[in-house]
Amino acid sequence: MKSYHLRYGGGLESLRLREHAVPEPGSTEVLVRMRANSLSSRELNILRGRYPLPVGDDIIAASDGAGEVVAVGSAVDRFQVGDRVMGVVFQRWFDGRFDFARADQLGGSLDGLLTEYAVLDQEGVVPIPGHLTYEEAATLPCVAVTAWNALVGGQGLVPGEHVLTLGSGGVSLFALQLAKVLGARVIATAGSDEKAARLTELGADAVINHTITPDWAKQVRELTDGRGVDHVVDVAGSLNESLRAVATGGEIAFVGSLGGADPIDARLLFTSAATLRPIALGHRAHFEAMNEAIAQAELHPVIDRVFPFDETTAAFRYYFDGGGFGKIVITHST
Amino acid sequence: MKSYHLRYGGGLESLRLREHAVPEPGSTEVLVRMRANSLSSRELNILRGRYPLPVGDDIIAASDGAGEVVAVGSAVDRFQVGDRVMGVVFQRWFDGRFDFARADQLGGSLDGLLTEYAVLDQEGVVPIPGHLTYEEAATLPCVAVTAWNALVGGQGLVPGEHVLTLGSGGVSLFALQLAKVLGARVIATAGSDEKAARLTELGADAVINHTITPDWAKQVRELTDGRGVDHVVDVAGSLNESLRAVATGGEIAFVGSLGGADPIDARLLFTSAATLRPIALGHRAHFEAMNEAIAQAELHPVIDRVFPFDETTAAFRYYFDGGGFGKIVITHST
Amino acid sequence: MKSYHLRYGGGLESLRLREHAVPEPGSTEVLVRMRANSLSSRELNILRGRYPLPVGDDIIAASDGAGEVVAVGSAVDRFQVGDRVMGVVFQRWFDGRFDFARADQLGGSLDGLLTEYAVLDQEGVVPIPGHLTYEEAATLPCVAVTAWNALVGGQGLVPGEHVLTLGSGGVSLFALQLAKVLGARVIATAGSDEKAARLTELGADAVINHTITPDWAKQVRELTDGRGVDHVVDVAGSLNESLRAVATGGEIAFVGSLGGADPIDARLLFTSAATLRPIALGHRAHFEAMNEAIAQAELHPVIDRVFPFDETTAAFRYYFDGGGFGKIVITHST
Amino acid sequence: MKSYHLRYGGGLESLRLREHAVPEPGSTEVLVRMRANSLSSRELNILRGRYPLPVGDDIIAASDGAGEVVAVGSAVDRFQVGDRVMGVVFQRWFDGRFDFARADQLGGSLDGLLTEYAVLDQEGVVPIPGHLTYEEAATLPCVAVTAWNALVGGQGLVPGEHVLTLGSGGVSLFALQLAKVLGARVIATAGSDEKAARLTELGADAVINHTITPDWAKQVRELTDGRGVDHVVDVAGSLNESLRAVATGGEIAFVGSLGGADPIDARLLFTSAATLRPIALGHRAHFEAMNEAIAQAELHPVIDRVFPFDETTAAFRYYFDGGGFGKIVITHST
Repeated sequence: MKSYHLRYGGGLESLRLREHAVPEPGSTEVLVRMRANSLSSRELNILRGRYPLPVGDDIIAASDGAGEVVAVGSAVDRFQVGDRVMGVVFQRWFDGRFDFARADQLGGSLDGLLTEYAVLDQEGVVPIPGHLTYEEAATLPCVAVTAWNALVGGQGLVPGEHVLTLGSGGVSLFALQLAKVLGARVIATAGSDEKAARLTELGADAVINHTITPDWAKQVRELTDGRGVDHVVDVAGSLNESLRAVATGGEIAFVGSLGGADPIDARLLFTSAATLRPIALGHRAHFEAMNEAIAQAELHPVIDRVFPFDETTAAFRYYFDGGGFGKIVITHST
Repeated sequence: MKSYHLRYGGGLESLRLREHAVPEPGSTEVLVRMRANSLSSRELNILRGRYPLPVGDDIIAASDGAGEVVAVGSAVDRFQVGDRVMGVVFQRWFDGRFDFARADQLGGSLDGLLTEYAVLDQEGVVPIPGHLTYEEAATLPCVAVTAWNALVGGQGLVPGEHVLTLGSGGVSLFALQLAKVLGARVIATAGSDEKAARLTELGADAVINHTITPDWAKQVRELTDGRGVDHVVDVAGSLNESLRAVATGGEIAFVGSLGGADPIDARLLFTSAATLRPIALGHRAHFEAMNEAIAQAELHPVIDRVFPFDETTAAFRYYFDGGGFGKIVITHST
Repeated sequence: MKSYHLRYGGGLESLRLREHAVPEPGSTEVLVRMRANSLSSRELNILRGRYPLPVGDDIIAASDGAGEVVAVGSAVDRFQVGDRVMGVVFQRWFDGRFDFARADQLGGSLDGLLTEYAVLDQEGVVPIPGHLTYEEAATLPCVAVTAWNALVGGQGLVPGEHVLTLGSGGVSLFALQLAKVLGARVIATAGSDEKAARLTELGADAVINHTITPDWAKQVRELTDGRGVDHVVDVAGSLNESLRAVATGGEIAFVGSLGGADPIDARLLFTSAATLRPIALGHRAHFEAMNEAIAQAELHPVIDRVFPFDETTAAFRYYFDGGGFGKIVITHST
Repeated sequence: MKSYHLRYGGGLESLRLREHAVPEPGSTEVLVRMRANSLSSRELNILRGRYPLPVGDDIIAASDGAGEVVAVGSAVDRFQVGDRVMGVVFQRWFDGRFDFARADQLGGSLDGLLTEYAVLDQEGVVPIPGHLTYEEAATLPCVAVTAWNALVGGQGLVPGEHVLTLGSGGVSLFALQLAKVLGARVIATAGSDEKAARLTELGADAVINHTITPDWAKQVRELTDGRGVDHVVDVAGSLNESLRAVATGGEIAFVGSLGGADPIDARLLFTSAATLRPIALGHRAHFEAMNEAIAQAELHPVIDRVFPFDETTAAFRYYFDGGGFGKIVITHST
């Protein structure tokens, strides 16, 4: 079988296709024939050497993948051959508070899923909602789970509350779509009118062009009768502007911009009375609950482009160059 | 001004129209020109002498009403003349756990709202969602708040979870509608195929005719791949059947059937691992959160018949005789 | 190595000592040299054929055990040789809501710990608090975790709240001790004045002799100025009396008496406004949090008698005959 | 009757004793003969013109006071003459999320309690725990409630968790004492060895002299085996150092230092995975729950000095000059 490997900080050129024997599942493991993968900023950060957790040597790439169970270990009781599954990025973070002692993750400290076959513990995979293709399912494990955690993992979200999403990256698109499923009113920011139009199609109740209006907080307040939004999903690290836009006692989920986030004004934080909650992905219980919501709403992820497995390097290059609107997917079907 | 009074245990014949001077609001109070009321089983239970809380002597009837603020006290800072408001049934239960020491309620220990003018503390009214008429708003304070508390006041409800509602009474109709707003899959029971059709129109994903299938738990399990439902809103006191229908670790909100509820099988309760939560209405924070959800979803209550204020006695009689499908409303407009 | 095996429904005579090879840990597993075990009513129910979950054939007995890690698999990263650990009864219930699909438990569907060596997944053991002996640690996995879940797993417990415990069984003793650690005021019932004195020594603020006062709810109300208790840990299935003793909006944790629990009066349940929450043990996160609390408070479990491993049959017989006051422990030390 | 008035930004010299008629309680109000008051940094900030909320003109000073009910309005049902009560600072924040629309507070937008008689709504006072004097009770409304909210108002606190308190101000002393009541392990910082000794007496498990060790986070990590603390109660605005000291997924309650708090390093926040929660006091339900805990633990507040009512100006001056260790109280007894 073939797998794409990469090296921490090795850049795009470190991506390498290698040949292995198909692994055998241990007693509690399943063997998955991968059918699709997607790329996340995790991959970029790893290739650029800017990832906050330890990354294994010469690991197989990609945290995100979906496939079909083709063999099971002797003690496996939750899945059977033929089941369609997705990998859980943090393989041992099942529920509750994050714990660095159980932080091993696919495509990071552990081998990833950009491979023809992968062996995973049965507790490290979840079923795919019935209405989704493998390509669609492959977009969920990293960014959709992050968006779900951002929306419901803290104070919870009640229908009718206001949510603010920033831009049109992977997490933000899912945050918008899932917030609508949760009954929220969504204000989004976008970098162009074209993107704004796409966000409106996806259900945004209002969109602010942040190129034209970089100090969008004022407009957010106007759109909410002065109250501000109950939830901000901040992927941009624009935390001071978010603090100006959030309602008293609201919540800002800070989706780790490791790069150039500005220092946070403590006085602004205090007067906002809003909770600032940094998040890194989510746990398996988030993933499972989200899947139920996605199934019930028959929500479909936004896919930008699909590349064949053979053209994985081109997919990475396209992503490095900024991509388009939606997720970049790699398919194993021909 | 005119008010309808009633006597605890006095039956329909105790309903009496009386003339008063229009009251003046105290410093923290608002004077409301009532525009509409609705009837709830509370009224029937009070007239029949079967109400679990103390009821005042010769009180003005009805917990539910909506109207317009026409005067405000000197210290009122939350409302102004012209605001459209609904009364909060438990006037001092603002949030948190119920407390008998703050149990005074409209149309029970306190005068109700079946009157042309009512004086209420500004903390005892909430604004009406913009898309609702007074007649629609008047249906919310008792049964909609109860349904909301039943759905979200305990373990919380995540989109994609299964909710079971029983029959087509006031609480059950709102439970169905609100559960759909919350993204749940709803199984409802109904006493006739005609009612089943109405429930399907309101969004029920499946309806079971409980006249044909009195042991509906089996069918509920089939409809949920054997898992059972995550939430039951039990207004019928059929708690053993509900325990058979609920998922492991799920929740049954028991909406006080004071009448002939059968004893609960403790062993069934234990093996269900489901929480049994009796509820009586809900608090102001429930009411306010629900209003946001109703506004966002533009949900409209189901109204059976509207009677003019002058024909209040006919409205009560119609309700005593069983009513139809939806709420019975009294309007003050002519 | 030697292990005690038993047969479901086989009674005391089915208890049999057998010889095995010492097992080898798999890649994520630890090999534990067991040092102590304790007996719980689970064992009695299994021998009597009255256990609600499937039990394996000829399994090794006992859910509860503590020991020392003597070997670890290649992928084990949470424990090392020499660590002192306890087994987690539900090996795959880590956090969140209980799920029958992950209900395998030690000494039930899985082999238990009444053996010289046991192999367990590293995710299925937790460290022993430093101040506890192996004999003390062996008492925790079943009844202490149940008591902890009963106290904090539902509405949570705030210091100063009232807790009611019933009798002097294993769960009740821990419920009393842990409730004191949590800052609660504890009312306990006891079957004799001698036991009442023991409970007072353990910290009970008041004790009611339930042999003299079988209708103890009245006395509970008197002891709480009429309010009732915020939490009942009901191991006795006396749910109607508990409903009379609980405060409005309080909580009754129903610790599965499978035997002769009386039917529950639905009207009593409704007027109590108290939540009825059946519980079966607790999850690993409960266990870990409890261990921190036990360590901080330097709490010591109550041990009735310690039997040597060779006299396990005598220990079971002693337990069958009713035991004394506190846990029955089996030690592997000589 | 006599009352001390002050002017926003007027400094100590604006403090003025004035004579009024004793007010009459309205229908839902109680008349309280004040017996003791305490001073908080709120008073200093108001006199210095640095308070974040609107302050009334020429208001009566002081948010904190305790006294005896000497008359009640006609509709009062929760208190009677002779009851010992404390004022609730935010008179209309009963529970749930803070809301600027109900932000009126004693000694700020409303008259305070540094007066011989005060009229308060019955919903704006709470009973004094039986073991406390008026002087002790008068220390609770502002800083103790803040400390309680800081500890339990967010993620909650489980016995055995680690709490870090900073310095020996009013909130920090209560945070230390209440954290011990809640079963936590407490690390405190102190500005001198003498103060450190006092904190140890109050129950601190470890104290770090922050004059000697301004970068105390390292030492906090050593004291917690590298994990960090689960909760920081940060009154100092030293948020970056707190972020270095907090455990993964822990919580920092930021008790509004409005002055010179340094900007927060967003990257530090992200890698901590800890929630940053600014708090301003707490609601009535916090106050009531805390009182139960204080009563059960028989906790006594730390009082630095007690001044007679006539020497209120001297009390303010003493406080302006830095005070000592514990609360500054004004008594009305002679």
